Amino acid sequence: MRIAIAQLNYHIGNFEANQQKMLDAIETAIADKADLILFGELATCGYPPRDFLEFRDFISKSDAVIHTLLSASKEIAIVVGAPTINPDVEGKDLYNSAFFLYNGVIQHIAHKALLPTYDVFDEYRYFEPAKEFKTIEFKGKRIAITICEDIWNVGNANPLYTICPMDEMINENPDLILNLSASPFSFDHAQERIHTCRANVARYGIPLFYANSVGAQTELIFDGGSLVVSPNGNVHHEMSYFQEEVKVFDLQAVRFGHSEFEQPKDKMALIHDAVVLGIKDYFKKLGFKSAILGLSGGVDSALTAALAVRALGKENVVGILMPSEFSTGHSVSDAEDLAKRLGIKYEIIAIKSVYESFMSQLTPLFEDKGFDVTEENLQARVRGTLLMALSNKFGHILLNTTNKSEFAVGYGTLYGDLCGGISVLGDIYKTEIYDLVKYVNSTENVIPENTITKAPSAELRPGQKDSDSLPEYPILDPILRMYLEQMLGPDEIIAAGYDPTLVKRILRMVNMNEFKRHQSAPVLRVSNKSFGAGRRLPIVAKYLS
Amino acid sequence: MRIAIAQLNYHIGNFEANQQKMLDAIETAIADKADLILFGELATCGYPPRDFLEFRDFISKSDAVIHTLLSASKEIAIVVGAPTINPDVEGKDLYNSAFFLYNGVIQHIAHKALLPTYDVFDEYRYFEPAKEFKTIEFKGKRIAITICEDIWNVGNANPLYTICPMDEMINENPDLILNLSASPFSFDHAQERIHTCRANVARYGIPLFYANSVGAQTELIFDGGSLVVSPNGNVHHEMSYFQEEVKVFDLQAVRFGHSEFEQPKDKMALIHDAVVLGIKDYFKKLGFKSAILGLSGGVDSALTAALAVRALGKENVVGILMPSEFSTGHSVSDAEDLAKRLGIKYEIIAIKSVYESFMSQLTPLFEDKGFDVTEENLQARVRGTLLMALSNKFGHILLNTTNKSEFAVGYGTLYGDLCGGISVLGDIYKTEIYDLVKYVNSTENVIPENTITKAPSAELRPGQKDSDSLPEYPILDPILRMYLEQMLGPDEIIAAGYDPTLVKRILRMVNMNEFKRHQSAPVLRVSNKSFGAGRRLPIVAKYLS
Repeated sequence: MRIAIAQLNYHIGNFEANQQKMLDAIETAIADKADLILFGELATCGYPPRDFLEFRDFISKSDAVIHTLLSASKEIAIVVGAPTINPDVEGKDLYNSAFFLYNGVIQHIAHKALLPTYDVFDEYRYFEPAKEFKTIEFKGKRIAITICEDIWNVGNANPLYTICPMDEMINENPDLILNLSASPFSFDHAQERIHTCRANVARYGIPLFYANSVGAQTELIFDGGSLVVSPNGNVHHEMSYFQEEVKVFDLQAVRFGHSEFEQPKDKMALIHDAVVLGIKDYFKKLGFKSAILGLSGGVDSALTAALAVRALGKENVVGILMPSEFSTGHSVSDAEDLAKRLGIKYEIIAIKSVYESFMSQLTPLFEDKGFDVTEENLQARVRGTLLMALSNKFGHILLNTTNKSEFAVGYGTLYGDLCGGISVLGDIYKTEIYDLVKYVNSTENVIPENTITKAPSAELRPGQKDSDSLPEYPILDPILRMYLEQMLGPDEIIAAGYDPTLVKRILRMVNMNEFKRHQSAPVLRVSNKSFGAGRRLPIVAKYLS
Repeated sequence: MRIAIAQLNYHIGNFEANQQKMLDAIETAIADKADLILFGELATCGYPPRDFLEFRDFISKSDAVIHTLLSASKEIAIVVGAPTINPDVEGKDLYNSAFFLYNGVIQHIAHKALLPTYDVFDEYRYFEPAKEFKTIEFKGKRIAITICEDIWNVGNANPLYTICPMDEMINENPDLILNLSASPFSFDHAQERIHTCRANVARYGIPLFYANSVGAQTELIFDGGSLVVSPNGNVHHEMSYFQEEVKVFDLQAVRFGHSEFEQPKDKMALIHDAVVLGIKDYFKKLGFKSAILGLSGGVDSALTAALAVRALGKENVVGILMPSEFSTGHSVSDAEDLAKRLGIKYEIIAIKSVYESFMSQLTPLFEDKGFDVTEENLQARVRGTLLMALSNKFGHILLNTTNKSEFAVGYGTLYGDLCGGISVLGDIYKTEIYDLVKYVNSTENVIPENTITKAPSAELRPGQKDSDSLPEYPILDPILRMYLEQMLGPDEIIAAGYDPTLVKRILRMVNMNEFKRHQSAPVLRVSNKSFGAGRRLPIVAKYLS
C-alpha cells in the first residue's frame, strides 16, 4: 500500500482555494500510485476557524467540499479533516472530525477525543470529544485514525486527559496509525513532535503517518514537518518545514526500511524561516503585496526590514526614515545604509514641522507643564500617523517592529510605534534579536555593523538610552522569561538571584501595560508562550501592579 | 437560621481589598445576627482572573485570604468562592471551588461541575470539573452548595452538560441551596436568571439563595440582582442592581413567606446603569479619575459624554472640539451647547494647521493621487493624537465613542476615532443609541435636540453623510443582528427579505474589518453577543469576504 501525505497551506474560510489545493494533491498522489492520501486537521475550512464554526453556513460550505472530494475518491482513499455536526442533542454542537472517503462513499468518520483548551487553543469551546473509537479496514489493512492531540496522551501519561484513543483502538489490531494535525510552530516544538510520534510507535509497534499543516494563520505559524515513523522507532522521513509538499510512502518500506531523514533544527534558522513565512502568508492571504515600515537606524527595524524583504521581495518593501530633533546623526545614516544594502525604496520625512504644529496647538492647553512622556509619545504618534497615511495611500501594510522585551514592559507608544498590521518580532526577546540578526547576516550580510553595536535608544528625548529606564536586556530578559513563560512569582524570581526592587518593578510594568498589548497587532508566534491568543489577562486588575 | 448574602464588587488580583470588603460584610452580617454569610464565585481573587490562574503565587495569595477568613469564622459560617489546587495528577490543575468555613475550620470544599466554555467564558481552560457532590450539615440544616453555572442545567435539560449537580445532591435531602455566582450582565439576562432560579426551586422544592457579584471588570459588567427564591416559586427578594449590598434573610420567612420584591427591568434603564458602572469601575479600579473625549456635535460623543458625567462627575470629564474644514457650523455649536448643559470643561482645537503640516510633508510623496480615504483617516488620526497628548499630559483616560453598528462594519479609523481606553457604546447599535439618548434626556435633559435630529455624518469630506456609504441604520442594524447574534448566513438573511447585494456587502465589511476590532479598546458588554472576548475570529481569513 502506498500512502501520500499532503502537507498543505490552507486558508481559513477559503473553501474554494482549499478544495482546489486538495484536488491538485490528489492528482499528484494518484500519478504516484498512492492508494490513500492524508490531509490535515480541519483541512476543508483551515485551522483555527475560531467562532466561524458557530455559523451553520460555514459548516455547510465545509460539507460541500467533502461532497466534491467524494467524487474524487474513486481511485484513491481520501482522509481529510472537517468539522461535523454532533447529531445528539447533548453536548457541544460539533465534532472535530476526519472523513475516510473511498469509492465515492463516506466509509468512516472519526472524531477527535482530546481537545486542547489551553494556550492558543480553544477546542472545547466548539467541539464535543469523541466517545467511541473504531478502526477501519482498507485494502486488507486495518487503519487507526487520530486527530492531532489524540496521540499526545500516550498510554494516558499526559495528566490533562483521561482517555487515550490509541489504547482503545489497539484492541482492534490496526496495521498503521494515521494522524491529521494542525500543530503550530514554536522553536522547540518539532523535537517534541518527533518524541511524541516515537513514543506512540514504541507503545503500539505499528507505523505512524503524521500529516501536519503548513502556513501562517495570522499569529499562528504551522511549520509542516510531517512525519513517517517506522515501527522500530526510526524517523523514516520528516517532510520539509515551512513549505507545501505532497509525498508518497510505501508502507512496506516504512515497516521494514531503515532509511531515516530529519530536517536540521537550528533555533535561529527555524525562527527566521517561521517569521518569513508568517509575513508572507499574512500578506498573501489578505490580498496585499507590499509592506511599509519605519526605519530608525536601530536593530529591530533593520531586522524587520530584512525579514520583510525575504518574505515579499525588495521591490515590495518601503522604508520611511523619520528623524526628529533628538535623533542622532547615525540614525539616518545607518538606516540609509540598511535600505541601500537591502535595495529597498526609502523616503526621509523629518517630523519636526508636524510635531511643532501639534505643539503650537497643544502648548496653550498644557498649562506650563514641562516636557514629559507626552512629548515622547507625540513624536511616536506623528511617525505612526505618517506611516499609516502612506500605507492608506499606496495600499501597503504597516509592519510593527516592537520586540518581546519592549512589548512586555510597555516600552512603546500606543497608536505610535505600536501601530502595524502584524508584529514581526513581538515574540522575540531583545537578546534573541541579536542572535537572529547574526543569523540573517550569516546568510547575507545586510544589517549594518553600526546598527548592531550601538546602544539601543528610542531617541525621544536628548541622549536617551533604553538602559536609562530599563535594566540591561541580559538582566531583563531572563526575568521576563521566568515570569511570562515559567509563570514564576516575584519570590521565586528573587530567589533565583535577582534584585527584589528590580523584579517587582518589572513585573509591575508587565501587568500595568496589559492595556497596550490588548490594542496591539497580532504577534507572529515563535515560542511556546507568546503575547496574544495564548496569553489572556484582565486589563482592569491589581496583581503585582 | 439567618443567611446573609454579600453582593460585592471584587477587584481582580486585589486580594487585600477583596479581603477587607469581605471582613466588613462579615461584621455587618454578624451585627444583623446572621448565622451564615454567602459571597460570590472566586471572590478572593475576583472574576474572571483569566491566565493569572496559571501563577501559583496568585493561588497562594488567594489561599492567604481564605486563611484570614477562617479566623473570622468563629461566630458565623462563611461560604466563599476561591480557586483551589487539584490534588490529583490527572486533569486540569485547579478547581473553581466554594469553601465552607466555620469555627476556624474548613468544614467543606465544594467544586464547580459545569464549566462554561463559550462566549466570554473560558473555564475549561483552567478548571477540572467536580466529579463528587456532597451536602453539608450546619446548625441542623443540610445545605447544598452550587457555583454559578451548576444550577443552569436543571434536571439535565441543558444540552451542553451531562451532569446536574443538584440532581445528585437532592438525594441527601438538603434543606436549602446556596449558589455563588459571577454572572455578567446583558440587558435580558436578569429575567433568564430569575427563570432559572425558579426552575431549580420548582424541581427541588427547597429555597435558593443566589449571591451574584457586582461591578465591572473591564468589558464584563456584573449586575448583582442576587436572589432569594421561596419553595413556592415566589421571588422572596431580588437584591439591587449595579451596587454593593449586604442583606440578611430569615430562612423561616423565606420558606413560608409570601413577600416578593423584584427590581424593575426597563431595557434602556438597565443599559444606562450598566454602562455608567462600567465607566466608573474602569477608572476606579485602574486608579484614574478623569476622562477626556472628542465632542463632534454628533449623537455618539454626546451620549458618551453624558454617561461619563454620570459615572465620574462633571468636574472629571473634559470635552475637546476639533473641527476641520469639512465640519459644518452646527458641529461646534451643538458640541458647545452639550458641554454647557453638562457643565463640563471643554476646549476647541482646530485641526487644520496640523492636518496641513502633515499634508505638506506627505503631498510630495503622494504622487498626485487624489483625495481618498487616506485624508479622511488622517483627520481622524490628528484628532486621536491630540486627544492622546492631552490624556498623557493630564492623566485623563480617553473614552472611545464608537457605536456597535460602525464598529461592526469598520466605519472608523484605526488609531483615529477608534482610540480610547474603553469603548462605552461599542455594544449598542446606532438605532439603540437614539433610544438610550431618549432615556438619558428623560432623566435629565442634557443632549441637545439638534444633535439628535441631524443626519449622522463623519464630516471627513465635503457634505459627507453616513448614508452615503452605509445603508440607513434601521436596515443595517437588523442585518447585523442576524449575522452577529443569530449567526445566520447570507442565504438566511436574504430570505428574511433583505437585498442580496446589500447583505453580501455588509457581511463582507464585517469580516474584512476584524483587524480593526482586534486592535481596539475593550467594549462594555450589554448584550449577549458583544465584540471582544465573547467573539473570537481569525483576522487572516476569507469567509464571506
